[in-house]
Order: sequence, then C-alpha cells, then structure tokens
Amino acid sequence: MIDQSNDLAGQIRARIDSLTKPLGALGRIEALAAQIAALQGRTDPQMAACALIIFAGDHGIAGEGVSAFPQEVTRQMVLNFLAGGAAANVFANSLGVPLSVVDAGMAGPRMEHPGLIDRRIARGTRNSAVEAAMTAEQCAAALRAGHALAQEAACDALCLGEMGIANTSAASLVAHKLTGVSLDLLVGRGTGLDDGALAHKAAVLARAAARTAPQLDALTALAEYGGFEIAMMAGAMLGAAQARRIVIVDGFIAGAAAAAALAIDPAVRPALVFAHRSAERGHAALLEALDAEPLLDLGLRLGEGTGALLAWPLVRAAAAMIRDMASFSAAGVSGPQ
Amino acid sequence: MIDQSNDLAGQIRARIDSLTKPLGALGRIEALAAQIAALQGRTDPQMAACALIIFAGDHGIAGEGVSAFPQEVTRQMVLNFLAGGAAANVFANSLGVPLSVVDAGMAGPRMEHPGLIDRRIARGTRNSAVEAAMTAEQCAAALRAGHALAQEAACDALCLGEMGIANTSAASLVAHKLTGVSLDLLVGRGTGLDDGALAHKAAVLARAAARTAPQLDALTALAEYGGFEIAMMAGAMLGAAQARRIVIVDGFIAGAAAAAALAIDPAVRPALVFAHRSAERGHAALLEALDAEPLLDLGLRLGEGTGALLAWPLVRAAAAMIRDMASFSAAGVSGPQ
Repeated sequence: MIDQSNDLAGQIRARIDSLTKPLGALGRIEALAAQIAALQGRTDPQMAACALIIFAGDHGIAGEGVSAFPQEVTRQMVLNFLAGGAAANVFANSLGVPLSVVDAGMAGPRMEHPGLIDRRIARGTRNSAVEAAMTAEQCAAALRAGHALAQEAACDALCLGEMGIANTSAASLVAHKLTGVSLDLLVGRGTGLDDGALAHKAAVLARAAARTAPQLDALTALAEYGGFEIAMMAGAMLGAAQARRIVIVDGFIAGAAAAAALAIDPAVRPALVFAHRSAERGHAALLEALDAEPLLDLGLRLGEGTGALLAWPLVRAAAAMIRDMASFSAAGVSGPQ
Repeated sequence: MIDQSNDLAGQIRARIDSLTKPLGALGRIEALAAQIAALQGRTDPQMAACALIIFAGDHGIAGEGVSAFPQEVTRQMVLNFLAGGAAANVFANSLGVPLSVVDAGMAGPRMEHPGLIDRRIARGTRNSAVEAAMTAEQCAAALRAGHALAQEAACDALCLGEMGIANTSAASLVAHKLTGVSLDLLVGRGTGLDDGALAHKAAVLARAAARTAPQLDALTALAEYGGFEIAMMAGAMLGAAQARRIVIVDGFIAGAAAAAALAIDPAVRPALVFAHRSAERGHAALLEALDAEPLLDLGLRLGEGTGALLAWPLVRAAAAMIRDMASFSAAGVSGPQ
C-alpha cells in the first residue's frame, strides 16, 4: 500500500540530509520523519491533526480472578472518560487531541450516554480459560468496526487506547499464540497483582493456552483469546494504514493488537509508530518479537492510549522537521570544513 | 528555596495516589508531577507557558581545529534561527513555544538584527588550550546576564539551548574539571568528526586540561574553559530556579552548564528536568556523574534546545495529571478488590 520506490526513498533521504543540522543529528526523529514521508508519499508530509479512540471491552476470563480490580471498573472508567477525569482525558486536553470512547463490548446492559460510540459486539467475551472468547463472526465484526472507525477518523495520526479489566490476560494469550514467545515472559502484574495473585494468573493463562495449538493464525488467536477491544484496535490499525494514517501504538494491549494486525497484513507496518515500552512485563518481549523499538521508555503501564498521546508531539515534530526546516543552501549555512 | 516540608510532600503523594489509575501506573510522569508540585509548593501546579532561549557564543579553541564545521557557522545559524529555518524553530512552532536568541559573545562584529537579544560579553572566548577562556569578570557578567534573562522570562518552564562552534570542547573541559570524570569519557565527535579528527580533538583537550589543577570550583572552571553561552545558561538555571520555574535541560552543552549551576548552588536541583540523553559521547557519563536520569533517549545530538523542546509536552502533561485528573472517590471508581 506504500510507495516504496527507491526514487521516493532517495528524495526523502536527500531532503533530510539537506537540512541545517549535522548529518543524522536528530537521531530517531529523522527516521520517524522518513517513515511519515514515505507513508504519505511526499517529502512535505502533513501532520496537523491527531485523534485518540479508546475501545472498552470486558473479558470473561476476569471471572478467574486474574485482575487486581473488579470488572465493574471497566464501566466506571468509561464514565470517567466521558466525564473528562481520566489520565487519557487530561493528557489529550494538554495536547489538544480529541478523544472518542467506543463501547466494543462491555459487560452488563447498554450504557446510555450521548458521548459513547456504540459498537458493542456482546456483553463481554466468554471465559477463554475454558472456551473460545468469541465466535469467528464476532471477531470479524469487531475487526470491521475498528476498520471503519479508523477510516472515518479525520486525522493524520491516530492514537489507539483501551480499557478492559483483565485485558492484560487476553493480550498475553494473543501475543503468545501469534509470536511463539513463552507465556512466562508475557504474563505480568497488570494493574498491580501481588506475587500470589500473579502466580494464580500465570496458572490460569497456562490452562487457557493449553486449550489450543501452540501457534495460531491471527483470526483464530483473536477469536480464541482476544477481547473485543483488541480485535477492534487491530481492525483500526488495518483501516488507518489503508488510509495512509499513522497509527501511534500505545502499550502492551495495543501491542497485542498490532501483532494481530501485522499477522493479518504485513503492509500495515509502515503506518505503525510504537509509542513506548510499558512497565507491564510482557511488553518488552512482545516488542522484541515484533522487531519494534518504541520512542519512549517512561515506566508507564496504564493503557487508555496515554503513552500514545505522549508520543504524538514527537510525530508532529518529525513531520515538521522534514517539511519546514531550511536547507544549508537556502539558509546560506556552510557545510563541514 | 523549595518548601520541602514533609507535609507538602505527603500531600503531593496522597493526591497522586488518589487519582483514577493503578498506583504508580504513570511511572516517570508521576515523579515529574511530584517535582513540579514541590517546586511550586502546591498540589495544583500551573504549567501553561514554556519558552526557549538560545544562547550563541564563539570559542577561541575552535582555532585548534576541534570542530567539523567552520566558526562562521555560529553566526550563520543565528541568522537561521532569526529567519525561522532551524530545527529549534520548527520544533518550537510545532509545540507553540516562543523562541528568543541571545548573542552571548559571538566572534566578529555586532550583528544588527531587531530580533537578536544583545548580551555580548566579548568577540568570542580566548583559546582555552593556551590560556583562560575568559576573565573572572566576564564569567560573572555572563552568569548575571543569564540570571536576569531567566527571571524576566514569562513562563512556567524554560528550555535552554545553545549554538557555538567548538562548544562540545568547552563542555567536555568544564564537565571534566567539575565532576572529575575522565576526559576520555567526555570527548566525542561533536557535529561529526572522523576518527583522525577525534584523536586530534582529544589531544588538544588533554593539553588544555593540563594547564590547571585536576578539579576546579565552578567559577574557575567556567572562566578557564567555558563559553559565554555555557556560563549564561548556568546563570539562567540559577535565575529560573530562584523564580521557581522548571528548567528543561537540553543535551551535553546544557548539561555542562547544569553541572556548573549545581556546583554554584545545589538548591537549583529541584528546578532541573533533564530532557534527553544525547548521542554525543560525553553526555551519558556526565548525566551519571550528576545522578540525572533524562526523560528521552532518541539519539539526538543537535543542541539548540531541540531535545528540551521535545520534553516540554511531558512536563506539561505531568502537571496536568496532578492538577486535573479525577480521584477514585470523585469519579466513583472502585479500588482494588
């Protein structure tokens, strides 16, 4: 989907190297600028608007006691997003980024709120420790819903976030089945399990993983273990990439969605910017399996797209660099002696 | 200068831990929020305005052939800043941060330009390989000028940047004399020296360092080896800290200024936020000597305050977090089960 002609890549490299700075002196910002320019097929990329979509979903596996927080917190936090009080809201306001909240499939009845986008697949997934989390049809519907939302989003860069009690469990299982990384390396404390609860979580996930073949294709892994919010984020990545929008991938849960999106269509890769390395244990191993080097490493482990938001100014600055900086010749600056 | 009462620290910690997120889930952003709140002496800190001041100065030691670029590039880049074409301008525009340019002591005649702030100490420093770079009076004048500029700046956070051909040499020498870190660990390629030129630079700096005692007090180190821009940045750090403004410290050169400011008055520390780890070789060792953990690690090595600018959105988001996020009780969100 991306114009990777040598001609464009050469023009982008030449433009970056013509700018008034020592060669390579802006490090990863230069690589990011080249990625954005290549995605948009131009050496003067636009990067004016960013948007954040938070997908909320519940997980049957929460009933196994794998999270430090009770399941009702998913709904409570969605109300917090809608009221503007969560970290994602505060970061988004601070950065001037609009935020949307999607019900991808929370437990309980439909939440009536004018600000909530309803894309409910079901009242939470089934318990993947004992059966498939969702049907193939539900998985396909979630992917389609995410794809459409990302294509409709009016932005140059899309931050994807999530909320869903027990979704580090879902993400660990999806990542394990897609990458082959050992489950031990992918299981972590989530919102703050103590040692005993962590051991219990690991045992539950091992039991869940043993239900199916060691490695699964993306659609099967999502259906067996995913959450609706994870499948919807994967669909959104596919939709955004098709629209040549940058996707700023948040932390561990979004990383599992990225693993699924990449397995479905590797052509999504040029659109993905990995925002940060989460403190959630599995994220480092997942990033390594995806050969992804994130921009930030701040010990974040919140989700909601908070890490993606913090990477947005870097994405905007990178595009501004290649688009707006003066060249040595235009500015009359001497080169190396 | 900072109210470090247990009461305030306890209030800040309690406020952060009451917010709707798992304990500690915002990692370094939480520590940054606590630092800002402590500096301002309130749990609802203001962080609305940021400003960047770029100090330009020339260095007699440039005549020893220690830089890849000719000395006239300092002036040419100042014109580039004033015309809006440099990386610092583009990043600052992208972030909505106003930028000022100060002539701290460039070589050659006074540059007549309405946008340039004239604080010239002299026409560049003398060659510190053979004599003191500046007199004690010049050093004091540079510190005073920076102090006043920072106190007058209308902002909550101040980014400090610099431009000066050969100023990695000055920074290496100042850092070496203040921290005792071996000069070998502090000498790097600057704007892009090849292996031969790097060896020559190391030899020149070793000769310069041998002129004086192994360790020097801050004022002597600045006078013997500093640049006017380095001394002025150190003064600006002192002035900003006194006004309880956050100082976002850029890379290696600004780091040497921070080492000097901290040696002059350790009370400046609570105001300093170290923005990034530069790719310039000496910066990692200098940060370690200062026990400073920067926010970003993006392979930058440009100076001009570019790294400081990229850290500003993190500073603003951290203040917004502690000021604006809802608490568990206010939002009606359940705690851990």
